[in-house]
Amino acid sequence: MGTEAERNGEWAEVTPDAARRLLTAGVQAFAERGYHATTTRDIAGRAGMSPAALYIHYKTKEELLYRISSVGHRLALGILERARDGAGGPAERLADAVRHFVRWHAEHHTTARVVQYELGALGEEHYAEIVGLRRETDAAVRDIIEDGVRTGDFDVPDVRGTGLAVVSLCIDVARWFTSDGKRTPDEIGDLYAGLVLRMVGCTGHRPGDHR
Amino acid sequence: MGTEAERNGEWAEVTPDAARRLLTAGVQAFAERGYHATTTRDIAGRAGMSPAALYIHYKTKEELLYRISSVGHRLALGILERARDGAGGPAERLADAVRHFVRWHAEHHTTARVVQYELGALGEEHYAEIVGLRRETDAAVRDIIEDGVRTGDFDVPDVRGTGLAVVSLCIDVARWFTSDGKRTPDEIGDLYAGLVLRMVGCTGHRPGDHR
Repeated sequence: MGTEAERNGEWAEVTPDAARRLLTAGVQAFAERGYHATTTRDIAGRAGMSPAALYIHYKTKEELLYRISSVGHRLALGILERARDGAGGPAERLADAVRHFVRWHAEHHTTARVVQYELGALGEEHYAEIVGLRRETDAAVRDIIEDGVRTGDFDVPDVRGTGLAVVSLCIDVARWFTSDGKRTPDEIGDLYAGLVLRMVGCTGHRPGDHR
Repeated sequence: MGTEAERNGEWAEVTPDAARRLLTAGVQAFAERGYHATTTRDIAGRAGMSPAALYIHYKTKEELLYRISSVGHRLALGILERARDGAGGPAERLADAVRHFVRWHAEHHTTARVVQYELGALGEEHYAEIVGLRRETDAAVRDIIEDGVRTGDFDVPDVRGTGLAVVSLCIDVARWFTSDGKRTPDEIGDLYAGLVLRMVGCTGHRPGDHR
C-alpha cells in the first residue's frame, strides 16, 4: 500500500530519519490492521528497529498516531490556506483549493484514511488540538466562499453547510481512490473543481469539459 | 454509540433474535476497536451470550462482518432503487435519492462506518459480492442522472464521474455526522439534495433556501 508520494516527500519535515521511518511504518500498520490491533512491536519491526528504539522517538503508540495525524492535518490545512491566500478571484481560488485538496487525498489516501478513521483513538488533549486544525480547514474553505458571495461571483444561501460539504466531498476521495483506478488524481481534481463551482452557484462551468 | 434508528428497525430482517443481537453487538465492537482488534468472544459478551452460542449463527468473525456489510449495502441500495423507480421527473427523483441516502448514512452512521472502513477484511468471495452491490448503487444514481440528461433537465458532461461524486458526498456524511451536531439528518438531506441538483446543472435551485 501507499503511493510514491506517500513513501517520499510527505514526511520530509519529520527528523531524524528513524522517527520518519517509524511514522511511515505506523501508517502502513494502522491502515492494514487498525490502530487497536497494531502493537508498537509491529511498527518497530516494520521499520527494521527494536521496540526499545521506537520508545526513544515515541513514548506511546498514541503519540505516534498523534504525530501522523498532526503532520497530515497540517499539510492538508496548508494546501487550503495557500489557495485561499493566493492570487485570482474567488472562483479561481476555490477551484485551486479543491484541485490541490483532492489531489492530496488521492495521493496520500493511506495516510488520510488513518488520520480520518482513527481520530477516536487520540488522547483528549491531542484530539482537541486536531479538532482545532479541522476547524481551521473548514474555515479556509468558508473564507473563499464568503469572498465569492461578497463579490457576487457565488450564490450560496448556506455558506457554512456548503463549505462543510465541499471539504467532505474532497476528503472522501481518500476512501475510494485506488492507484489502479481509471482516473488520475489530477483528473479527479479537475472534475471536482468544476462540480464545486456549480455547488456555489458559479455558473458557466461545465465540469469535465475542460480536460 | 448508535442512534435509535440503529438500535431498532435496521436489522429487522435478521432472524432469529439471537443472530440479530450478535450483529448489533458486532457493529458496536468493530466501530469502537476495529475489526482486527475485536474477538468473537468480545462480541458474544456484548450480546450477553457465550462464544459457543455465537458459532451457532456465525461460523467466523468474517462471516459476521459479511452479514453486517451485506445487510447494510442492501438497505442503502434499496433506498436508491426506490428513488430511481419512483414517480416524478429526474430532478425530483435525484433529490429524493440524495435526501434518503443522506438520512440513512446519518442515522446509521455507526453501521455505515464499519461497512465502509472494514471492506478489506472481507474474504475474497464476500468482497466480490459486496463490490457487486456497490456497482449497483453507483448505477442507480447514474440511471437518474442519465434520465435527466436525456430529458434536458440536467447538463452533465461526465455522467459517471458526477454520479460517483454524488454517492461519495452522501456516504461521507457517516464519517462526520454526530447525533449531537447542529443539523438533523433531514436538514443535511435537504441541503445536499439542493447541492446535488446544482452539481448536475439543474438550475433554479438555491440549496438551503427551502428549509
